[in-house]
Amino acid sequence: MPNIIIEGPPIQDLNKKRQLVRELTDTAVKVFGLPKETIVVLIKENAPENVGVGGELIIDRHTK
Amino acid sequence: MPNIIIEGPPIQDLNKKRQLVRELTDTAVKVFGLPKETIVVLIKENAPENVGVGGELIIDRHTK
Amino acid sequence: MPNIIIEGPPIQDLNKKRQLVRELTDTAVKVFGLPKETIVVLIKENAPENVGVGGELIIDRHTK
Amino acid sequence: MPNIIIEGPPIQDLNKKRQLVRELTDTAVKVFGLPKETIVVLIKENAPENVGVGGELIIDRHTK
Amino acid sequence: MPNIIIEGPPIQDLNKKRQLVRELTDTAVKVFGLPKETIVVLIKENAPENVGVGGELIIDRHTK
Amino acid sequence: MPNIIIEGPPIQDLNKKRQLVRELTDTAVKVFGLPKETIVVLIKENAPENVGVGGELIIDRHTK
Repeated sequence: MPNIIIEGPPIQDLNKKRQLVRELTDTAVKVFGLPKETIVVLIKENAPENVGVGGELIIDRHTK
Repeated sequence: MPNIIIEGPPIQDLNKKRQLVRELTDTAVKVFGLPKETIVVLIKENAPENVGVGGELIIDRHTK
Repeated sequence: MPNIIIEGPPIQDLNKKRQLVRELTDTAVKVFGLPKETIVVLIKENAPENVGVGGELIIDRHTK
Repeated sequence: MPNIIIEGPPIQDLNKKRQLVRELTDTAVKVFGLPKETIVVLIKENAPENVGVGGELIIDRHTK
Repeated sequence: MPNIIIEGPPIQDLNKKRQLVRELTDTAVKVFGLPKETIVVLIKENAPENVGVGGELIIDRHTK
Repeated sequence: MPNIIIEGPPIQDLNKKRQLVRELTDTAVKVFGLPKETIVVLIKENAPENVGVGGELIIDRHTK
């Protein structure tokens, strides 16, 4: 604790995941004033057929 | 925002996912009075070996 | 299970909450083909100072 | 309801999952005084490349 | 990590919360084989007007 | 979507919340390459009697 959960699309590039975790952690350290080791980040990758925006699946928006 | 997260069993039929997103979004639009585009739905599919009900995994209930 | 979690703004009107739970449950019953009693809905109300959209707190957007 | 969600590393051994669900449910039954059948447990398995601790992905810590 | 989130009704008795955290943590330590200090438990208390079961708010079930 | 949820202790200072939302959003924009307006941040404040670390409530750790 604190924990940060990111619900987003799949991320292919491992370096993007590294950047995400590094920068989100740095922000949390600054705001909460807690040691870096206490910050946990969970990256949740959601397939486009499992996400709806505006009543439509992302997968259907992409095929338009 | 608003966001709707559904934790349920796997859904094989893509049309079921379409229906889920369409109807959940319609309900949220009516209740919150916000534009359709602001509503995000996340479908979370849980394998039967990762869900417990009444202290038992679903996978064990199904094999009885 | 299935569980539906709605993250949204505060809802003052109890009847809106009743409508939300009734309609989200009806949709889940239709899509999953499971008994009504298995569907749980959690309404999460978020204060406008705890929600950010586009990098800004909602509370700041409203005072513009 | 109540629902218990566990965000952890992957669990290979099905008996570990059985134990997790059985014991978490027993605890919830004792504390809430509700029937066993009302307790739902969701096990969420997170790949080591999707978890960050202290600003670093678990996958990078393991290769050190 | 691992993190355990419990979504349940309000808990008045602080000792019940202590018991919940102690026992859930003990179970996680046994199953994951990780040090006690890594286990985080979040207790989420939900007002009965914000929980629906079977299409009805808990608050309505209680007044029947 | 993407959505970022931060589970942490209460934050008294509104400017800290502003900073949290601004910086988390900036990171998400860079990593996902999506427009700022699509990023939603939810700040979840947890009372110290509702968080357990190492099997103990935070509230008990503070009174030691």
